[in-house]
Amino acid sequence: MEPAASRQAFRGRWVRVDEEDWPAGTWEVVRPLDAACVLPITPDGDVILVRQFRAAARRPILEIPAGLLDVEGEQPIDCAARELYEETGYRHDSIELLARVLPSPGFSTERIHVHVATTKHRPEGEPEDGIEIVRRPFAEAVEETRAGRIEDAKTALALLLSASRGVGG
Amino acid sequence: MEPAASRQAFRGRWVRVDEEDWPAGTWEVVRPLDAACVLPITPDGDVILVRQFRAAARRPILEIPAGLLDVEGEQPIDCAARELYEETGYRHDSIELLARVLPSPGFSTERIHVHVATTKHRPEGEPEDGIEIVRRPFAEAVEETRAGRIEDAKTALALLLSASRGVGG
Repeated sequence: MEPAASRQAFRGRWVRVDEEDWPAGTWEVVRPLDAACVLPITPDGDVILVRQFRAAARRPILEIPAGLLDVEGEQPIDCAARELYEETGYRHDSIELLARVLPSPGFSTERIHVHVATTKHRPEGEPEDGIEIVRRPFAEAVEETRAGRIEDAKTALALLLSASRGVGG
Repeated sequence: MEPAASRQAFRGRWVRVDEEDWPAGTWEVVRPLDAACVLPITPDGDVILVRQFRAAARRPILEIPAGLLDVEGEQPIDCAARELYEETGYRHDSIELLARVLPSPGFSTERIHVHVATTKHRPEGEPEDGIEIVRRPFAEAVEETRAGRIEDAKTALALLLSASRGVGG
């Protein structure tokens, strides 16, 4: 379905907002870029998370490596693999899609492609500036998620999806 | 931490966008209202989901009952219980918090309070206009989530968190 009318209400550098007329009323629809992310699991069964400052949260947030789909023609799975290397220095050995999810379908078009990867034993590069690498056993990270202590939704989802599929041991 | 400077770049009816200056650069921060949601499980072990049209997705999306924290002074858990009743007609018997998550901390301040509830046997009211009730066994909904077929992130998370805690059988 398409709206009867749509007006661009705001256009920033990363985010656009449209006002759309639908039979039930007028809605604001936020249009950020879509994103890809990946839960990296080492051959030893550790997950590699990144802690970085997020302006929207006013503090550092613990997340899996992720990035915007801002490279023309790049597939989400390749974006996830690239972000893994750029943010952590680890290259993937294998990588697969877990799910494509809508984090906020009530007002935002954003779609996140969630992956899980096995990594090489050792990093081949340096972590990105401003990123702290947090490495911990997979089971421990899943337990934290179950206890409600992983705030980032895509990270919690990647951990629980991997655990429920028996990935990561 | 607070930004060196912040300018309101857009103010709509539901969403505000600020441009903020941080040491690492200028970011757009989207400020929607926070939300509360709840996975309702009947005494028979069924989950009650709602399918409703979402303008941002251009189609109906299957979700757990949810709503914005737009009532002054209302607690998130009370908002979730109220939305459950308003959207489905079911009242809760018990309700508890599973997690508070950030669906898109890279650009949005949104926080979602995720709950799980047990419901009464039968609905006491009518579903909201435009909402289709989808009732299915808990285990079946969890299996769909594992297979990556639940698109809405908060719904997938509520199902997997409940399953991992042994809620819902």
